[in-house]
Amino acid sequence: MFGKTIKDAPKDEVAINARLLIRGGFIRREVSGVYNYLPLGIRVLNKISNIVREEMNSIGGQEVLLSSLQNKQSWEKTNRWNNFDALFKLTSVLDNEYALGPSHEEVVVPLAKQFISSYKDLPLSVYQIQTKFRDEKRAKSGILRGREFLMKDLYSFHATDADFKKYYEEVKKAYEKVFKRLNLKAIETQASGGAFSKVSHEYQVITDAGEDEIIYCPGGDFSSNAQISPVKEGKQCDLGHGPLKRAKAIEVGNIFPLGTKFSDAFDLSYKNKEGKNMPVIMGCYGIGISRLMGAIAEVHNDEKGIIWPESVAPYDVHLMVFAREEGVKLNTKINKLLAVAKEKNIEVLIDDRQDVQPGAKHFDADLIGIPHKIIISGNKVDDEVIDYKSRSDNGKWNPMPISEAIDKISKKFQPKADPPLAEKS
Amino acid sequence: MFGKTIKDAPKDEVAINARLLIRGGFIRREVSGVYNYLPLGIRVLNKISNIVREEMNSIGGQEVLLSSLQNKQSWEKTNRWNNFDALFKLTSVLDNEYALGPSHEEVVVPLAKQFISSYKDLPLSVYQIQTKFRDEKRAKSGILRGREFLMKDLYSFHATDADFKKYYEEVKKAYEKVFKRLNLKAIETQASGGAFSKVSHEYQVITDAGEDEIIYCPGGDFSSNAQISPVKEGKQCDLGHGPLKRAKAIEVGNIFPLGTKFSDAFDLSYKNKEGKNMPVIMGCYGIGISRLMGAIAEVHNDEKGIIWPESVAPYDVHLMVFAREEGVKLNTKINKLLAVAKEKNIEVLIDDRQDVQPGAKHFDADLIGIPHKIIISGNKVDDEVIDYKSRSDNGKWNPMPISEAIDKISKKFQPKADPPLAEKS
Repeated sequence: MFGKTIKDAPKDEVAINARLLIRGGFIRREVSGVYNYLPLGIRVLNKISNIVREEMNSIGGQEVLLSSLQNKQSWEKTNRWNNFDALFKLTSVLDNEYALGPSHEEVVVPLAKQFISSYKDLPLSVYQIQTKFRDEKRAKSGILRGREFLMKDLYSFHATDADFKKYYEEVKKAYEKVFKRLNLKAIETQASGGAFSKVSHEYQVITDAGEDEIIYCPGGDFSSNAQISPVKEGKQCDLGHGPLKRAKAIEVGNIFPLGTKFSDAFDLSYKNKEGKNMPVIMGCYGIGISRLMGAIAEVHNDEKGIIWPESVAPYDVHLMVFAREEGVKLNTKINKLLAVAKEKNIEVLIDDRQDVQPGAKHFDADLIGIPHKIIISGNKVDDEVIDYKSRSDNGKWNPMPISEAIDKISKKFQPKADPPLAEKS
Repeated sequence: MFGKTIKDAPKDEVAINARLLIRGGFIRREVSGVYNYLPLGIRVLNKISNIVREEMNSIGGQEVLLSSLQNKQSWEKTNRWNNFDALFKLTSVLDNEYALGPSHEEVVVPLAKQFISSYKDLPLSVYQIQTKFRDEKRAKSGILRGREFLMKDLYSFHATDADFKKYYEEVKKAYEKVFKRLNLKAIETQASGGAFSKVSHEYQVITDAGEDEIIYCPGGDFSSNAQISPVKEGKQCDLGHGPLKRAKAIEVGNIFPLGTKFSDAFDLSYKNKEGKNMPVIMGCYGIGISRLMGAIAEVHNDEKGIIWPESVAPYDVHLMVFAREEGVKLNTKINKLLAVAKEKNIEVLIDDRQDVQPGAKHFDADLIGIPHKIIISGNKVDDEVIDYKSRSDNGKWNPMPISEAIDKISKKFQPKADPPLAEKS
């Protein structure tokens, strides 16, 4: 496999996520704040993307792919060409300038304008999972904050404020499902709302690696970004859950009412039933895909390495083969395991390196952090018994038949969202 | 659905592919040479990507995701920072300069150097499907040649020239499978090989939209890029296939021996069995994913619109519902069709717009170009009969039971490549 584990992370990588992901062979740094994804890494990224995709489809999101090279005129129309923090600008041989997309309001709104003319065209929501670029001044947080990163951004378009608010609540529910499936406790947190709304909402995962601070009730009924919190740490929760706490957290998602800010800039309007022109009301909703991968690595680890949740692990099973000699029976057992696993859609990473000691294989397995570990060894070639242990179990290995281990593993799978049967034109 | 068909393409779009794809609601232009992909468009792009992915996996390619922001020092090491045609350069607030990736040798070779040290680490092949940027001086060919485009690039690393040559032939076979599955006649064509090889190979699809010219034998035993062809148009084929022809063509893929050009630049070497340091021999292999989408649109169309091959059509069936009134029976029939289709993994696009005349629905269906068309109408609500016609059939509609239509359609599916059971570490 392309990518090797290493004992020590580069000294200039300070973030836990980057250190663990580099050591485990998931990523490698290209330049500061920019990472290449190795085969293990892209598997995790794809699994996170697919969970997000399923939940966005389930709330009627239509997937698109918008360009990174963006029209300067559109950025001027929104007054963001010179005001957007961390915008990369490009000059072409054509003497044109482009924005290198850090966000896509300037693309999606002129595009939507081509398709929205009547109330019948609303509501509408489109999303993409796409690479974004931001010229961050500091990039010391590994893949939690990079100059190039993968993001899901959804934009919704509505005729009325009531319709927008209804959809906003639907997105909240979809976001909760996403984070639950990723095994991440992301706290819905009030944040600043900009010009068109008093508040927006962020989804914050508590971790010392976070760059935000939140004030929150341990009982779960209040959380606010510390920057705008109306109350302070230590105040008693109104509902009797004890004193409010303060913690560092990383924002893994946000949902934001845009009002008519962008509709006004691009004159995006629709004709209502009475034939009157009305501005379109918008919301935008982000989830940081690569940041989520980093947040999971920050939260789910122990001294040996990462412990991936089942839903996003690069493989389901890490199979270590320990054999003093190559044997037909050993291969029969491996093939049996693979066949049973395949039947249940269980993906197996095989470590059958012959010149590597068992200790080093254990070390690598724990560092990579695939949730289920299986050993097939030369000692037990005569029957169907393998040794099983979950990654998070620090106790003994459990001998059991292949079928029992596979059953155990497949029961832990989370149900997948059903893809939509068909879409309407 | 986000995206509408339009009768006329923008006047400044001259390329057939762009005109058809814009009219059908697949793409919209952001700036010259840069396109946004609408829901129909991204479905085609994903289907092409998945076919390419399957075939690359089948020859041992390991998928990675390399960065777009690239290290300037690496481009200087290969002497391409100032010499690479159409390289976009970016300046960061950090006073760093980056290349915006038009290709990834400068990324993948330093990366591979971290993992290759012994002959035991070879051969190795990695690929990605990723957005590339080139500052093209002219961009008038729609998605055949853009400033931002989707590409598959695979890089292979070998200990010996013999091993490289063996793999080169394997890639040729995989490429042939890709183009066959896409229903594209791509001619393996000799092209200039650069410093390390007399020839490389391009895969050329004959079309007037092409920017290359090839000299080829109509019998299929010779083809060369006109720029390097040792023979001229009109010369008799040695094998008796008649006179060689000359035609315009678009390069949809290429395979290229790199020798040790990049290994030398980055000092990428391995220790052979005798412990001696040897340079790694490389090849690179490209396929233009978005260009393929354009080439298919150029080749597979008629006066009404695109005719997508089954393997990459955005949906398998375009269902038009013609009903004078809404009826329970009508919905029963639609649901029956959808249920039977789902069972066979057939994807259905439904046009049940109530304020659109049948003529306009036919017009849209032919413009979009989904290969199978079905009508469910109010006339036949009492039985299981629908009307079926394939997109390429200009004759009459054929009444038939739902099950017969679905059987007909599912039989045309091409078999998919089997994903690898497990990968080795």
